[in-house]
Amino acid sequence: MKRAQIVGATGYGGLGMTELLLRHPQLEVTSLLARQDVGKRISDIFPHLRGFCDMVVEDANDETVGRDADIVIFATPDGVGQSYAQRLYFAGIPIIDYSGDFRFDSTAQYDEYSRRHPKLGGKAHACPELLAQSVFGIPELNRERLRGARIVGNPGCFAVSMILGLAPAARCGLIEMEGIVADGKTGISGAGKSPGPAYHFPAANENVTPYRIGNHQHAVETEMAIGKLAGAAIDLTFVPHLVPVTRGIICTLYGRTRSETAAAGVQAAYEQFYAGEPFVRVLPPGVAATLGDVRGSNVCNISVTVANAGRRLIVTSSIDNLLKGQAGVALQNINLMLGFPETTGLERVPMYP
Amino acid sequence: MKRAQIVGATGYGGLGMTELLLRHPQLEVTSLLARQDVGKRISDIFPHLRGFCDMVVEDANDETVGRDADIVIFATPDGVGQSYAQRLYFAGIPIIDYSGDFRFDSTAQYDEYSRRHPKLGGKAHACPELLAQSVFGIPELNRERLRGARIVGNPGCFAVSMILGLAPAARCGLIEMEGIVADGKTGISGAGKSPGPAYHFPAANENVTPYRIGNHQHAVETEMAIGKLAGAAIDLTFVPHLVPVTRGIICTLYGRTRSETAAAGVQAAYEQFYAGEPFVRVLPPGVAATLGDVRGSNVCNISVTVANAGRRLIVTSSIDNLLKGQAGVALQNINLMLGFPETTGLERVPMYP
Amino acid sequence: MKRAQIVGATGYGGLGMTELLLRHPQLEVTSLLARQDVGKRISDIFPHLRGFCDMVVEDANDETVGRDADIVIFATPDGVGQSYAQRLYFAGIPIIDYSGDFRFDSTAQYDEYSRRHPKLGGKAHACPELLAQSVFGIPELNRERLRGARIVGNPGCFAVSMILGLAPAARCGLIEMEGIVADGKTGISGAGKSPGPAYHFPAANENVTPYRIGNHQHAVETEMAIGKLAGAAIDLTFVPHLVPVTRGIICTLYGRTRSETAAAGVQAAYEQFYAGEPFVRVLPPGVAATLGDVRGSNVCNISVTVANAGRRLIVTSSIDNLLKGQAGVALQNINLMLGFPETTGLERVPMYP
Amino acid sequence: MKRAQIVGATGYGGLGMTELLLRHPQLEVTSLLARQDVGKRISDIFPHLRGFCDMVVEDANDETVGRDADIVIFATPDGVGQSYAQRLYFAGIPIIDYSGDFRFDSTAQYDEYSRRHPKLGGKAHACPELLAQSVFGIPELNRERLRGARIVGNPGCFAVSMILGLAPAARCGLIEMEGIVADGKTGISGAGKSPGPAYHFPAANENVTPYRIGNHQHAVETEMAIGKLAGAAIDLTFVPHLVPVTRGIICTLYGRTRSETAAAGVQAAYEQFYAGEPFVRVLPPGVAATLGDVRGSNVCNISVTVANAGRRLIVTSSIDNLLKGQAGVALQNINLMLGFPETTGLERVPMYP
Repeated sequence: MKRAQIVGATGYGGLGMTELLLRHPQLEVTSLLARQDVGKRISDIFPHLRGFCDMVVEDANDETVGRDADIVIFATPDGVGQSYAQRLYFAGIPIIDYSGDFRFDSTAQYDEYSRRHPKLGGKAHACPELLAQSVFGIPELNRERLRGARIVGNPGCFAVSMILGLAPAARCGLIEMEGIVADGKTGISGAGKSPGPAYHFPAANENVTPYRIGNHQHAVETEMAIGKLAGAAIDLTFVPHLVPVTRGIICTLYGRTRSETAAAGVQAAYEQFYAGEPFVRVLPPGVAATLGDVRGSNVCNISVTVANAGRRLIVTSSIDNLLKGQAGVALQNINLMLGFPETTGLERVPMYP
Repeated sequence: MKRAQIVGATGYGGLGMTELLLRHPQLEVTSLLARQDVGKRISDIFPHLRGFCDMVVEDANDETVGRDADIVIFATPDGVGQSYAQRLYFAGIPIIDYSGDFRFDSTAQYDEYSRRHPKLGGKAHACPELLAQSVFGIPELNRERLRGARIVGNPGCFAVSMILGLAPAARCGLIEMEGIVADGKTGISGAGKSPGPAYHFPAANENVTPYRIGNHQHAVETEMAIGKLAGAAIDLTFVPHLVPVTRGIICTLYGRTRSETAAAGVQAAYEQFYAGEPFVRVLPPGVAATLGDVRGSNVCNISVTVANAGRRLIVTSSIDNLLKGQAGVALQNINLMLGFPETTGLERVPMYP
Repeated sequence: MKRAQIVGATGYGGLGMTELLLRHPQLEVTSLLARQDVGKRISDIFPHLRGFCDMVVEDANDETVGRDADIVIFATPDGVGQSYAQRLYFAGIPIIDYSGDFRFDSTAQYDEYSRRHPKLGGKAHACPELLAQSVFGIPELNRERLRGARIVGNPGCFAVSMILGLAPAARCGLIEMEGIVADGKTGISGAGKSPGPAYHFPAANENVTPYRIGNHQHAVETEMAIGKLAGAAIDLTFVPHLVPVTRGIICTLYGRTRSETAAAGVQAAYEQFYAGEPFVRVLPPGVAATLGDVRGSNVCNISVTVANAGRRLIVTSSIDNLLKGQAGVALQNINLMLGFPETTGLERVPMYP
Repeated sequence: MKRAQIVGATGYGGLGMTELLLRHPQLEVTSLLARQDVGKRISDIFPHLRGFCDMVVEDANDETVGRDADIVIFATPDGVGQSYAQRLYFAGIPIIDYSGDFRFDSTAQYDEYSRRHPKLGGKAHACPELLAQSVFGIPELNRERLRGARIVGNPGCFAVSMILGLAPAARCGLIEMEGIVADGKTGISGAGKSPGPAYHFPAANENVTPYRIGNHQHAVETEMAIGKLAGAAIDLTFVPHLVPVTRGIICTLYGRTRSETAAAGVQAAYEQFYAGEPFVRVLPPGVAATLGDVRGSNVCNISVTVANAGRRLIVTSSIDNLLKGQAGVALQNINLMLGFPETTGLERVPMYP
């Protein structure tokens, strides 16, 4: 039994990992660290855990982070993981980080991300020399590099949905790389556990709110990953919207086809690209991706439609933002990092209704 | 006091008009017609009306439609209004129709609409000669023609949101007419009062469902109206999504600018286009349109953003689908048809939260 | 045109009054006061008001409160109104207060309320001598005393629902005064505009949460009002529950009948008690009160059922918590205070769906 | 591996069992039967199952029911299970039935239930001689009788919540058996998969609706089970309410204590009664049961409060209506029937948020 330490255990991201690892046969949580609610039982903070996990939250600091752990999971905001990474790296302890700290290969890419991030405001990376060691945690694209990786940057929730939806089109050259539109809809849990005016029930309920129009930082990693597949720079316009659901992200992706395209060919390309993937389902023609069909699971649903007389490709791509968009993909990455079967602990059927 | 007859009084569209006319000083409902629930009080069908309107629903038929009415409002599915229109037209009774029956100038346009409509399946119009007499009911575009009009085709709910969002850009030549993307999100009331599997609470709640991807009939009237403004054919890709709210539509519209464009110019163009409009609010830069800010009112909120280094225009456009998207715009049109001040009975403040 | 000043204008309670007075022909808002967001336009705080009301919020202080006002409306937490009341009373300016400051006739009752209130913790009243001048603002019970009243304590939202539901039974001696159960369900807007963990969308959505079990302060004014009607002390057990809706309160009230009782007699007693009331609807047998049938209106729906072989009376009583439970009943009270027709500005049809 | 057959596989109740058995190591679904959608894949009916279970639904009839099965699970409406029970009983195939068909020991009790049931209307039982062989499926009360049982009547969802909430009080004589009030709130999935006007999203959303006031059939089995524990007839008033959530039931239960009672004693009695129970959590004082803390699990949360100066006991009791209220408790019963460890396949952590 390997030992996992979760830093940032009192947020939704840490919680998701705690829940998953309760059912993992080869990896167990041995410490929960955070900066608030230290000394409380996790089941006093999240009462649904009572009887399942009653561990006490410890303070996250230089002494505790990495202690007695075979892997450290940073379910923390940008900047935290990079402040501990060097020490852990040289101590030989693998880490995975939920923030943007290790999603980028190069300082240049990180700087662009940091510039767009509302809280980073362009701040430089604390240990840029580790970026070259890090792997971007999309198993469907980077599986081999993730095996045994020591530093993994877990992808942003919107990025998972966009990248999986666009990857086959980019790899197969089905669409122009210029003028791609991504219209995203996210449940409110994507904003985390901290209350705020936009997430107050009376404000969010019965509402749909676009935000950070054309300016969201998850576009950066999507452009990077998709550009790499396409072998060309891509030009993406991304608008996220808050919708009044708790869990789930769906992106509707619009691209101009390179030539008049038949639906059957696109369908076949997508099915082939994802053949054998345990967590991506390419839906049959006429069936759209929805939130309800992936909730509670690590599955990404993808549907493709050709419209405007063959000139437009429309992809819908849905995930549970807290699983395939966060803790689920993280565990998939961890399984690869530690050499476990990739699907261990993730064989969850979506919960419907 | 003029007399209004509502045909299709037992659906949400008829209900919306009944509610509005209870507060209209110059127009009153004198008969409610329908094909089901005939003989019941409207307040037994919609208990919230008890004490406000307790009229009995009468059967809609050749004898009752148009009887003792100064205007007939068809809050009915496609095909009903056109079956009565000729008789009413020659009897000099003005009509407004909520369906696609009279939204189109020409048989060719109607045929294209009919072809795309899931229930019409290409069926021909019953009185094509009246199409030339009809006016498409977007007051912001067709105000003068609506004054005194005898046949008005009330616009589709999504079409109102898209047309108002795109009109200034089309008129001022701000964007390419090719490759426009419209991503729509609608509350479930847009599907009407009849239960169905997709609108069953456990299915619709906690879900977002794209439907009729790239193939929704409201695109036809949008292309027609926007094409007319632009003086060129437009190429629109439209994907509607069901979101778990009761009321409201928001469309996020994406266009490629003709040249690198500054945000200030676009903002000014939109503000100028809608200057003096009683029901369109062009929001200040940085404030997005939302459902919550228009619910319960006849207002359309519009925001504009320039992204991708001046190469992309993003418009968000929100309405209450049952008011500015249906009964509200209908009353605005009726006020113009009958010569009342345009805002009469529509001075409703949005209800927030 | 009389002049109204709203203190606490930036909360939901002040907002509700602002919205209502926009449509009142004899009373207009002339100043909006608050302690936060001073200097901002109210339409920057509540963007749905843009174009309807763009007044600037002023600081609430000794100089501004009461200035140039024919009535002052305290939409403020407990303790604020009583700190200004004496000065305004002697200046001859009528006031209405949304909190518990002036709901009680006597110091003893206020002390019991203060003791149960989670934020007052037993604090004594600042101007107890004014309590005897104040009137508890339930028009259905205290109409004559409210006409021309100088100090009115607007009732708590749950109290409105409970008192209107129990009043006929208490007055007519239909139930035992011992062992009454009130099970309340409230929309989240009842908690006000400030975000908090329990009102965070992911926490409140898909949830039902009982709170302050058997210990809510609104029980005190209900016991007082109902006890007065019954001429005897009452023993009430009240449990409120948060339910995931924005607006609305429904209380289900359970009492033991004094003798085996027939449904028809209870129905008649309730109908007679509320005959002529403009805002209370006693529903026909078999029709339950719901939130959906009163939302957006000042109406209270009441239904009565006799169960357990005549031994139990069950009443359901629903209101829009922000209207009949707050700003609506306040305006009804103000109309009485200032001599306007009681329904002025309140003739709103419930908004359904 | 034992073989389970699900009759009524296309409803929510059958679906819940299918989902659970996908993770059960000793029991697998070998046939899915229904009367509609026969011949379709279950994953075409419930697309979230695609790739997890793609079995074809077969017609339920005399030939198919019981074929090649070690247990038959009737996830069917009242009357279906009893029409097959005799044949299966004599064939030695154990059955569990979700409806009221086998919840009652005696014809007299069944008749009372049938009389109150809106669809049975007093119809007599088809095989009354089997009632004496049946066991009512509340493991916490009837565990020993359930081991190896051949016919089990799975309890009603509301009944699970009420019975578990009241059982310790009844057994320990903490409350009077007269005048118990149960106020229930249920998610809409409790009504099943078939759309209907009350479950239409725009009707159910933003609404709370009491129904079958004082007359719901689940009260019968609750009175029976609790009366048996108390050794006395009980007099229960039960009002269920629809609330706008998908999953979950919470009952708030009110009883009069026999004498002035201290909270600590009640708490201890409840904790002792449920000591060792794998799926009942008695919460610490001050923590209320909620829907959010049990969703997605087989757990029942119970909290107790003493109010009104020791004269009133208030219990809140929450479950996931589709798991502990339906498929979960059914699997718990099946595990006992077939001799598997009771918690097998049910070790699910609640999913929060």
